[in-house]
Amino acid sequence: KQQFNRDEHQHLRYNPLRDEWILVSPHRSLRPWSGQVEPAPTEDVPKFDPNNPLCPGVTRPNGMVNPDYESTYVFTNDFPALLEEGPSPEPSDDPLFQMQAAKGTCRVICYHPHSNVYYTNLTDQQVVTIIDEWINQLKELGQKYRWVQIFENRGQMMGCSNPHPHCQIWASTFLPNEAKIKDANLRRFYEKYNKPLLIDYVEKELVKKERIVYENEYWVVVVPYWAVWPFETMVLPKKQIERFTDMCCIGKKTLATTLKVLVAKYDNIFKCKFPYSMGWHGAPTGEDLCTPQPHWTFHGIFLPPLLRSATVKKFMVGYELLAQSQRDLTPEKAADILRSQPNERFE
Amino acid sequence: KQQFNRDEHQHLRYNPLRDEWILVSPHRSLRPWSGQVEPAPTEDVPKFDPNNPLCPGVTRPNGMVNPDYESTYVFTNDFPALLEEGPSPEPSDDPLFQMQAAKGTCRVICYHPHSNVYYTNLTDQQVVTIIDEWINQLKELGQKYRWVQIFENRGQMMGCSNPHPHCQIWASTFLPNEAKIKDANLRRFYEKYNKPLLIDYVEKELVKKERIVYENEYWVVVVPYWAVWPFETMVLPKKQIERFTDMCCIGKKTLATTLKVLVAKYDNIFKCKFPYSMGWHGAPTGEDLCTPQPHWTFHGIFLPPLLRSATVKKFMVGYELLAQSQRDLTPEKAADILRSQPNERFE
Ligand SMILES: O=P(O)(O)O[C@H]1O[C@H](CO)[C@@H](O)[C@H](O)[C@H]1O
Ligand SMILES: O=P(O)(O)O[C@H]1O[C@H](CO)[C@@H](O)[C@H](O)[C@H]1O
Repeated sequence: KQQFNRDEHQHLRYNPLRDEWILVSPHRSLRPWSGQVEPAPTEDVPKFDPNNPLCPGVTRPNGMVNPDYESTYVFTNDFPALLEEGPSPEPSDDPLFQMQAAKGTCRVICYHPHSNVYYTNLTDQQVVTIIDEWINQLKELGQKYRWVQIFENRGQMMGCSNPHPHCQIWASTFLPNEAKIKDANLRRFYEKYNKPLLIDYVEKELVKKERIVYENEYWVVVVPYWAVWPFETMVLPKKQIERFTDMCCIGKKTLATTLKVLVAKYDNIFKCKFPYSMGWHGAPTGEDLCTPQPHWTFHGIFLPPLLRSATVKKFMVGYELLAQSQRDLTPEKAADILRSQPNERFE
Repeated sequence: KQQFNRDEHQHLRYNPLRDEWILVSPHRSLRPWSGQVEPAPTEDVPKFDPNNPLCPGVTRPNGMVNPDYESTYVFTNDFPALLEEGPSPEPSDDPLFQMQAAKGTCRVICYHPHSNVYYTNLTDQQVVTIIDEWINQLKELGQKYRWVQIFENRGQMMGCSNPHPHCQIWASTFLPNEAKIKDANLRRFYEKYNKPLLIDYVEKELVKKERIVYENEYWVVVVPYWAVWPFETMVLPKKQIERFTDMCCIGKKTLATTLKVLVAKYDNIFKCKFPYSMGWHGAPTGEDLCTPQPHWTFHGIFLPPLLRSATVKKFMVGYELLAQSQRDLTPEKAADILRSQPNERFE
């Protein structure tokens, strides 16, 4: 009887953060691709574009003028999905037609005055400035809002409509779905094992070494055992911290290095601006600031769609939408590829 | 104090099939779009292409020759994500590193010998032939497999790599994630109210009328109250049936009409081959054939990505992936748009 080999044979893997399974089909990687090819990510962006509403000194479509900012610059999104005020729906007693109030705010953080920079060509100190801004925003918005989602869509393939280096923050009175699921699963694990799930996980990954992409004294980048996107990674701290706001000075400096290295590695795979959505998850805020959240470990999440080249992505469609996430490339292989990339960007 | 109006004011809606919430932000529809524009769906496909591995008589890349089929044609996928046999992983006692065996099969159903046809230019009887094939496949594969996912990816935007009219079947020994979640929620509702959730739902929608796109004596097409994709729809039976295999003759004929009308309406919105993933969900099979599944109602699901035009889709990215599904267009507005389209395709 043939021996099972996870690099070759189909199997399911369990995601303990979502309590769900992923189908892994390594034998399918040989499939030829004749489907949609995406436009290649654009490499050249001018340092300044007077028509780009995120550049310093530019008048935005709504008439507001950006200051001549010299570092990070934060403003409220001109087309926010969440507003701070507004009427709330009446309660309904029909279980099939339930509405709830949603209040919140959406902000944009420009990382730097120049459009042609990114983590990889900023100094460590400039990246720390971005990290400090994330922390400031979380501190401020976390007073009022239960969940402060900091996220970045990089590249047009990921719905990003502006090449200027920036991220977004959507803060809400409610705990969004993904946060709720993660909270429940982290809590269950903590109650059972009396240890934060992600700390237990990172310690075990550091022993196994098979999915580690990069590590330094504070941080570990790992392709999770249950990764869905081809080159999905998590940025995990080596020591338990609940939130972004709990980070010390060395924590920030080493996180800046981690971000620079990870993005360089991504860009090196297909020699392009590797598209992704990324964001940070930590213990809920608002009313949850009053109670300890020892089950939560702060972490970063990178979800890149590319699979085969700079222009061929993994489609999350029919089966994935209707039945279950599926991947061809194993997480171990993806980690190998990422690990073996240089820590400096190709250019 | 301003009165709440769901067409104008942000709110959350509950999806009882997934036990999760969706953020609806109607005020955001005004947002201009300067992001990625997709290639327009191609309209012209030759009736026969000797290089297309799905056409009759063509030799596929693996050397197999398709028969000169004249109706539907089914074969096992040349690059299946699921194989019937193979070694299984050993059990692990670490809750963070869980693997399970996955066995299954993947098939392709060609709908018709000609590449340039689709529901809208087939006769009702020809569409019934496709429906009969779906039912045959479910009957056969359902004997052995717990879940038989019939689905179609239409258009390159939805990862479809071949313009010949076809769908796929992925059948598995395991209940995939989405099926498991839906099963649990349908069961809970049934235990509480002693009525299938989706029958209760369709009856209420037929009274409310706000989200109905189309109906005939057997079927109702509705934009679900909790729709995530801009023009998402469900195809629901008016009377309870658990599975595709429970359908009577008139059920099939009216389903053929429903499919033709729905696809025509979709295509009419932006005058294009409207891309989507679609598929069918019904009570699980395999071992579950032995026990009644009265909580399950057979239904169809259409998930189309387009939002603003034939080339601008809704991106499910940063916030959606990391926090919660979000939509700008309300389900009621989407239903209005679909309902007002002619039942015949534009061409
Ligand atoms: O099998 P196909 O059509 O080549 O592939 C398509 O559908 C599959 C099932 O949803 C997905 O896993 C693939 O990413 C997609 O490109
Ligand atoms: O706000 P942006 O960058 O214009 O929009 C982008 O990110 C949002 C948050 O993930 C998504 O809702 C949009 O679909 C996407 O295009």
